[in-house]
Amino acid sequence: MRATLYGGPWDISLGDRPDPRIEQPTDAIVGVVMGCVCGSDMWYFRGLSPHALGPIGHEFMGIVEEIGDDVSRISPGDLVIAPFLWCCGDCRPCKSGWPSNCLDGGSFGNHGHDGGQGEAVRSPYADATLVKVPGHDHDAATMKSLLALSDVMCTGHHAAVSAGVQSGQTVAVVGDGAVGLCAVLAAHRLGAQRIIALSRNPGRQKVAKDFGATDIVPERGDEAVERVRDLTDGYGADAVMECVGTGQSMDTAFGIAAVGSIVGAVGVPHDVVVPINTMIFSNIGLRGGVAPARRYIPELLPDVLAGTIDPGRVFDYETDLDHVLDAYQAMDERRAIKSLVHIGS
Amino acid sequence: MRATLYGGPWDISLGDRPDPRIEQPTDAIVGVVMGCVCGSDMWYFRGLSPHALGPIGHEFMGIVEEIGDDVSRISPGDLVIAPFLWCCGDCRPCKSGWPSNCLDGGSFGNHGHDGGQGEAVRSPYADATLVKVPGHDHDAATMKSLLALSDVMCTGHHAAVSAGVQSGQTVAVVGDGAVGLCAVLAAHRLGAQRIIALSRNPGRQKVAKDFGATDIVPERGDEAVERVRDLTDGYGADAVMECVGTGQSMDTAFGIAAVGSIVGAVGVPHDVVVPINTMIFSNIGLRGGVAPARRYIPELLPDVLAGTIDPGRVFDYETDLDHVLDAYQAMDERRAIKSLVHIGS
Repeated sequence: MRATLYGGPWDISLGDRPDPRIEQPTDAIVGVVMGCVCGSDMWYFRGLSPHALGPIGHEFMGIVEEIGDDVSRISPGDLVIAPFLWCCGDCRPCKSGWPSNCLDGGSFGNHGHDGGQGEAVRSPYADATLVKVPGHDHDAATMKSLLALSDVMCTGHHAAVSAGVQSGQTVAVVGDGAVGLCAVLAAHRLGAQRIIALSRNPGRQKVAKDFGATDIVPERGDEAVERVRDLTDGYGADAVMECVGTGQSMDTAFGIAAVGSIVGAVGVPHDVVVPINTMIFSNIGLRGGVAPARRYIPELLPDVLAGTIDPGRVFDYETDLDHVLDAYQAMDERRAIKSLVHIGS
Repeated sequence: MRATLYGGPWDISLGDRPDPRIEQPTDAIVGVVMGCVCGSDMWYFRGLSPHALGPIGHEFMGIVEEIGDDVSRISPGDLVIAPFLWCCGDCRPCKSGWPSNCLDGGSFGNHGHDGGQGEAVRSPYADATLVKVPGHDHDAATMKSLLALSDVMCTGHHAAVSAGVQSGQTVAVVGDGAVGLCAVLAAHRLGAQRIIALSRNPGRQKVAKDFGATDIVPERGDEAVERVRDLTDGYGADAVMECVGTGQSMDTAFGIAAVGSIVGAVGVPHDVVVPINTMIFSNIGLRGGVAPARRYIPELLPDVLAGTIDPGRVFDYETDLDHVLDAYQAMDERRAIKSLVHIGS
């Protein structure tokens, strides 16, 4: 089969891989319909985080082609969403709601395991991992929003949940990447009354507004902190979502967080120093991490199918497997918020 | 009047101060019955944290002697508990439950304001700050537990609340000082089923057990982490209370925290580096800070009066104002968990 291969920094190519096959009775083989490029793939592409050579791509949805003998909840022909990490469903982290910390879990599209930027994937623990989507005849916009549940929307939702966003609050989102935009959408869905999005990019500002942002702050650093403080009578936001993962973004997040609030952080940390004195003396918490997507997908799926949320709007660049390098380059050059790769049908 | 004065590191003496008087119509003058020495006073005593020269002591209870014209909720003769910080009750932090972050707040016994290790104190915003205790004829043990609500029990409770302690959980407490012991008691009060206390001191171990600790771990550092992991089938504790504030104690706290849990931290930070990668990749949160004692006192007071909790047991050294230096030395030399100073009647 054809699959995207990571050959090192800046080296993304289409290559051949053996067709995946059932190895365990709990496996399923999924024919990938659509995959996409994650913001974290950019860290690998740019050589700023390590990634195993070989298959890449941890976000996808597809059609079940084959199942192992012990798989009972999904069947060949089902349309399924894969969370970016597989999970056993039986260990204590899984049972306590943290499938992304599954003791037997792993990531699609890394360490030699086939991923969502290729034609087919073997999913371990298929019953526990894959989420079946009712029906097959979803329009293109819905399909994109379903794909967004594989990672980016769940990660934005995790920022909002971790920050404790509640109905009626004034909240702020640091980061206007696809995750930050999904955090805006998640906060809106959770009832935030006022949503301040930090973004200086006109295209992203528009999506943020469409997703529910009420205020846009184009400043950065200390100026952004001052601006958000001005917008909140000096108090800061009731909940802050940190969707970047750099030292500056974390400083900004704590700078705009109100006394007693929580910073919900989902960015992979790079050179982050947590301002412990600010935390302790202002009673500002920090929660978040790798999103438990498998827990969130069933919660968010009905809203996507009902059209209440449309996270698929973060995909503003679409291509096919033959042009997967373009998908990376468009994001690297910030021509795209997030790139979708059409693979099968 | 007589009051304890801080003259710099190791310099605690009894001196003279002008009698406090009503300065604002919202003030009250409280005759101090009992004060005590805080763990944070040890930082000042040892010269490890700055403190203004002059009056010291932020924990006390006493009898109201005089009130300003605008004070209506308390009257002369009332027995009152003072939270360690005064608060206006009207600003946004106060109204949102964070009186310790009051915009017009301040600390008793610092920056020239009379404190709880002296004969009398002027309380600003007396209606909002002081909490009236029903009745006067409380026995000695109850009086000590009431005094503990001024700071130490509320701070231990804040560690437990911040860590999200829930009924039935397995929790752990790092730190066997008075705050850590109160965190054990608070966790027990909140229904924790199993409480692991990290302590190597036999006297403190006994109080911890009496307060509800089910397991004692005398090891420190990596050995403590290993031991707690052993006790929890490798998973760590469902909630962790960090009651020290050093880099090592914070590392230990994160080392023993289960996936998805929260470290509730109340120690004043000294050389703490928050392990951000552990937080993000294990979804472990960090909350806490300066305890909102004024919010907690009314919540905990009925339990003290009913005898359900007896935080006063942390006072294992009692003296009078003439011997206040002894109170400090007993704690500095770890002969005492916490020193009580009898002042008035």
